[in-house]
Amino acid sequence: MTPGVGPRAAAKLLERFGSAEGVFRALRAELERLRLRPEAVESICLRDRHAAAMEELERVRQLGADVLVLDDGTYPALLREIADPPITLYVKGEWAACFDNPCVALVGSRRCSTYGQNVALMLARDLAGRGITIVSGLARGIDAAAHRGALEAGGRTVAVLGTGVDEVYPRDHKKLADEILAKGGALVSQFPLGTPPIPENFPYRNRIISGLSLGVALIEAAENSGSLITARLALEQGREVFAVPGNITSRNSFGTNYLIKGAGAKLVQQWQDVVAELPTEIAARLLPPEPKKKRGASGTVPSGVSAPADLSDGERALFNLLSTDSPSHIDALAEASKLAVPELSSALLGLEMRELIRQLPGKCFVRKL
Amino acid sequence: MTPGVGPRAAAKLLERFGSAEGVFRALRAELERLRLRPEAVESICLRDRHAAAMEELERVRQLGADVLVLDDGTYPALLREIADPPITLYVKGEWAACFDNPCVALVGSRRCSTYGQNVALMLARDLAGRGITIVSGLARGIDAAAHRGALEAGGRTVAVLGTGVDEVYPRDHKKLADEILAKGGALVSQFPLGTPPIPENFPYRNRIISGLSLGVALIEAAENSGSLITARLALEQGREVFAVPGNITSRNSFGTNYLIKGAGAKLVQQWQDVVAELPTEIAARLLPPEPKKKRGASGTVPSGVSAPADLSDGERALFNLLSTDSPSHIDALAEASKLAVPELSSALLGLEMRELIRQLPGKCFVRKL
Repeated sequence: MTPGVGPRAAAKLLERFGSAEGVFRALRAELERLRLRPEAVESICLRDRHAAAMEELERVRQLGADVLVLDDGTYPALLREIADPPITLYVKGEWAACFDNPCVALVGSRRCSTYGQNVALMLARDLAGRGITIVSGLARGIDAAAHRGALEAGGRTVAVLGTGVDEVYPRDHKKLADEILAKGGALVSQFPLGTPPIPENFPYRNRIISGLSLGVALIEAAENSGSLITARLALEQGREVFAVPGNITSRNSFGTNYLIKGAGAKLVQQWQDVVAELPTEIAARLLPPEPKKKRGASGTVPSGVSAPADLSDGERALFNLLSTDSPSHIDALAEASKLAVPELSSALLGLEMRELIRQLPGKCFVRKL
Repeated sequence: MTPGVGPRAAAKLLERFGSAEGVFRALRAELERLRLRPEAVESICLRDRHAAAMEELERVRQLGADVLVLDDGTYPALLREIADPPITLYVKGEWAACFDNPCVALVGSRRCSTYGQNVALMLARDLAGRGITIVSGLARGIDAAAHRGALEAGGRTVAVLGTGVDEVYPRDHKKLADEILAKGGALVSQFPLGTPPIPENFPYRNRIISGLSLGVALIEAAENSGSLITARLALEQGREVFAVPGNITSRNSFGTNYLIKGAGAKLVQQWQDVVAELPTEIAARLLPPEPKKKRGASGTVPSGVSAPADLSDGERALFNLLSTDSPSHIDALAEASKLAVPELSSALLGLEMRELIRQLPGKCFVRKL
């Protein structure tokens, strides 16, 4: 709350003096050497914001909220990693439980299509139902659909606000915010209580959305949209960036298709595509292992599993040629199966898409277990 | 036409005996050493297909068609590169002019959506209007739309058939085939005259579609569709593979999204995305160079171009800080512009998307010329 002290100056002060207490015990000359703005030095020396700060903390407590500080043990670990993390973070609701789960942000256009809304709902439902906290910005459109999807699945969701945690913008999302709190979610903001919706604050909000999350999935975004900026911030923060493709004739999908084409965003068709890119231990827990089928009585290779009844002749022939243990080269399969190249490719692709076999590097194939 | 001799056996024979004449002058013992099927050896020794072959050639001539042979100078160069190219290729129409232009295949589902049809039309029109020959399979759905788009643009298009060039399948595409021929396009098939539509032949047709083309663009494809196989064949042949994304809720876009996600297909939003991946000399000719703007009278850096009127304040400030000649690091820009990180990122992204500046490795930025 000190005038002229933003995240960067605050970090400099904390680094120099070790703690907030240290900063306020510092000598004027020491402060001046840090090249702060004059009004900042003045305010720190006079301690003229202390009363206001005490009042703010008291109001935070009355609201049932909390203020997390960058160097206390409860500040979200992922957010602390970004460049210039906010020194204080206002949180309300079951924030600790929310941040204990893996967090994924779902964001997108305020003016989205029905398609975008449905996809946001579906992905949020699928991810939140598996214990992933859905982070978004409480905006109209995609954000609201993402929060709602998480709530529908009985999961947790975090709304990051560009206002104080005691304000809700847009106003008609008040009920949504209340429901998020009632159902084990949280509201988060870096802005003091009572901060109204100021356009300049929303880019800061976007940084926290991506900063709190392992990955950011962009559901719909037009050209030049704020959501594209969130995606760019996430890339700069080293977070996974996902995008849902859409018809190239829809302006709402221009930005997501563009990110996939040119910026390395991972294409998402379903929730598994998001989970697969999360840290290994999370992905392994949430993605079901390859279906284990019982070995045949003999236990020998390549018997084990018999071919499903509805394979084509070519597929069946190849399936029977392949073993689970030693890869076969495509030329050997061509030789042994007497299939011409096109039929061979077609049958191998058919088996692959049914997840019966797997291609290894060097045009080799094995049966899946 | 020799029984028991497919492309592979034919290639072996030609390699051993140098020419078709050489093959038919070979001794039985020499042929038997090549481990051909007995009926092949028999037929070659008896020359029992010669009369039929002469008749076939006469009929081809009467149709105004041609038969290209693998080792004559007119056989399409790209097709000769694939594994086991067909020894003979039936062609009708202005095939030489068609193959002189860069060829790109547009393929997709027979049962496609209106979206897919529109995209196929649009892409074919955009590419064919710029002198690219559109190759497709004359099937219903995407194929037909691709041929029609090329014709609408006054461009050339090649229909590769799974039947003889004197047959058209499906029947109601007879008029389309006639129009392709009338407007400087061509029909191509590896199958003898009179070959009816046999399902087993269509995979061979797909190989020729990709074999003739520098790249294959998949417009729409459901799971397990034949078009996915064409894409796989194109990858095996070392050709560029493109796919048009679509809504993840549409089964017709499952295959294209899947190829982009997992198989390295390039995402296509517009014709430029296809052209950009073609050989450099073609891409350079078809893609307009970066718009050159006049330098200011002074000719100094960073003046030259003045900022467009509709930039935001932050964008204008950054634009004026950037030069065309020496890159500026993002930290220097932050320092000089006094913009906070989120506004800085947002303004840089805005300038990038308007193609006014370019990001270089290491978070450095320059103005575009």
